[in-house]
Amino acid sequence: MDIKSVGEFGFIDEVSKRFRSLVPTNLMGIGDDCAIIPANEDEEYVVTADLLVEGVHFLRDTITPEQLGYKSLAVNLSDIAAMGAKPIGAFMSIAIPKDVSPQLLDGFTKGFLELSQKYETPLLGGDTTKSLRDLMINITVIGKCKRGEAKLRSGAQDGDCICSTGFLGDSAAGLNLLLNNHKPQQDTNYFIERHNKPEPRINEGLWLAKHESITSMMDISDGVGSDLSHIAKASNLEAVVNIDRIPISEQLLNAYDTYNWNIHKLSISGGEDYELLFTINQEQLSEVLTAYQQQFGKPFYMLGVMRNGEGGSVVWQNDQSETFNFDGFNHY
Amino acid sequence: MDIKSVGEFGFIDEVSKRFRSLVPTNLMGIGDDCAIIPANEDEEYVVTADLLVEGVHFLRDTITPEQLGYKSLAVNLSDIAAMGAKPIGAFMSIAIPKDVSPQLLDGFTKGFLELSQKYETPLLGGDTTKSLRDLMINITVIGKCKRGEAKLRSGAQDGDCICSTGFLGDSAAGLNLLLNNHKPQQDTNYFIERHNKPEPRINEGLWLAKHESITSMMDISDGVGSDLSHIAKASNLEAVVNIDRIPISEQLLNAYDTYNWNIHKLSISGGEDYELLFTINQEQLSEVLTAYQQQFGKPFYMLGVMRNGEGGSVVWQNDQSETFNFDGFNHY
Repeated sequence: MDIKSVGEFGFIDEVSKRFRSLVPTNLMGIGDDCAIIPANEDEEYVVTADLLVEGVHFLRDTITPEQLGYKSLAVNLSDIAAMGAKPIGAFMSIAIPKDVSPQLLDGFTKGFLELSQKYETPLLGGDTTKSLRDLMINITVIGKCKRGEAKLRSGAQDGDCICSTGFLGDSAAGLNLLLNNHKPQQDTNYFIERHNKPEPRINEGLWLAKHESITSMMDISDGVGSDLSHIAKASNLEAVVNIDRIPISEQLLNAYDTYNWNIHKLSISGGEDYELLFTINQEQLSEVLTAYQQQFGKPFYMLGVMRNGEGGSVVWQNDQSETFNFDGFNHY
Repeated sequence: MDIKSVGEFGFIDEVSKRFRSLVPTNLMGIGDDCAIIPANEDEEYVVTADLLVEGVHFLRDTITPEQLGYKSLAVNLSDIAAMGAKPIGAFMSIAIPKDVSPQLLDGFTKGFLELSQKYETPLLGGDTTKSLRDLMINITVIGKCKRGEAKLRSGAQDGDCICSTGFLGDSAAGLNLLLNNHKPQQDTNYFIERHNKPEPRINEGLWLAKHESITSMMDISDGVGSDLSHIAKASNLEAVVNIDRIPISEQLLNAYDTYNWNIHKLSISGGEDYELLFTINQEQLSEVLTAYQQQFGKPFYMLGVMRNGEGGSVVWQNDQSETFNFDGFNHY
């Protein structure tokens, strides 16, 4: 087992295999955005954990303490949203190096609290320790949903439409600006905010989960290329994406030429948009979209279809049905 | 808020205060070994998280990968044991630097799995990422207990006896040996094993939890001095410890002179023994002790009494009722 050669998902697969026989049949473990644990006749709990490491996931000088606190919780709430669940509490483990200032800790807590309050997610516990060098934050969040109603990655059906709750690529554009020391401008602030302070789609997830026509759901954290392959693999289908339908914000359309960005790379493999990616029965698409727009004052976006084929593969086409080749995003 | 000046517990208190108003009345958050979340009419869930940081909690050259995996889970299971709960699943977040070998990861997983199997605690999820420099492991464990039967720190009563499930100071002796590069010998192996591969007292905790006479419980992770002050504070009582009754292993009694160890320092403020510390109604002590010995083939040890007095304080006396002064152990 070698993390550098097998990559993050390979390591997870290997570990998952070794522990599989220990998982009782009434629990769902590794393999989706959250694990599922039974609560009572009506409800079940979902659980997720995300680790943010200084120098890997953030740099102290490109994110404010408030944004870091907000984002630490947001990336976890995004996993809860992806199950269609409601968060009920969070656990924070934080390793703090000596050179972290009281102002950073104070701001971090404020940013975390802001999002906690927004989605009623109290901090229920955790661990605080020192760190020799890097600041690290692990957040575990527990959510609740109606029994049997959690949306999994494995439910997509042949012919279902693939949709996203929002624009893709903005967060990667923000990261690009931060790493290249671009001066804040009206547009760059938008991208940086999308990267440093992502909004978990809790309300959208809860709303979508009520619809049986939504057959699978996950959040877009690694980029739609990589994430969609998980839905395709779990559902044993092939995903066909129309790259001309990938939702791109007006801001990104206006700015990509200025910064010489590859708009496909940003939107397909950039990651960290934290929108919800879901599949929906084609016949209900129009009706659900109309209701969604009434509810949220914004649409969701249809970008492809699931079909029988090579399970786990993603095919990229344009409006003219020409096929393209894009690599997924991999942390390692 | 300054982690260096307020210390670990001060930071936790400060954070806890800010989030308190968000915690619903049917949940118990920060302040005990685990948080408590309702499950159904008969049961509730307990949740704990512990973070191990390279250079702070372990050194790669003084613990085997198998021991590190075992210990990462053990320190969490110890918190579950302290509530009198049964573990049902674990979540592992791990930040892996480039210089971590495949052998280390493999051994780590094996050690973790060994303890997972022993107490039927499957790995249900987590997060795997890279780290620039230090290896960090956060484990979150969920356990289950009968509704209302979790043992808290706050239940101790005036006159209750203070007890430990086992010897104190052996783990600190092991750490001392490791940090001073002592060669392995028959006795040093015992201490190092107690430090590197602690055994969570799950079965003892489950057994003790069934007895109403046990009024409070927690695990001894920071040293009995520090930990007992938490029971004393939560129960608004004073703890009086007879230092001549602190349980010391035969191995430690035989070895401390050789290594010039301060046996009181090791056993009171050394930490990481992961025994259970509990209070029991004086009248039931003898009966419960007899039954415990029959069940486990070993005794527990009575080392003091709780009494009305300055809430949160710990008083140290010897057999002659002379009073001593010892400082607690604090990570910061």
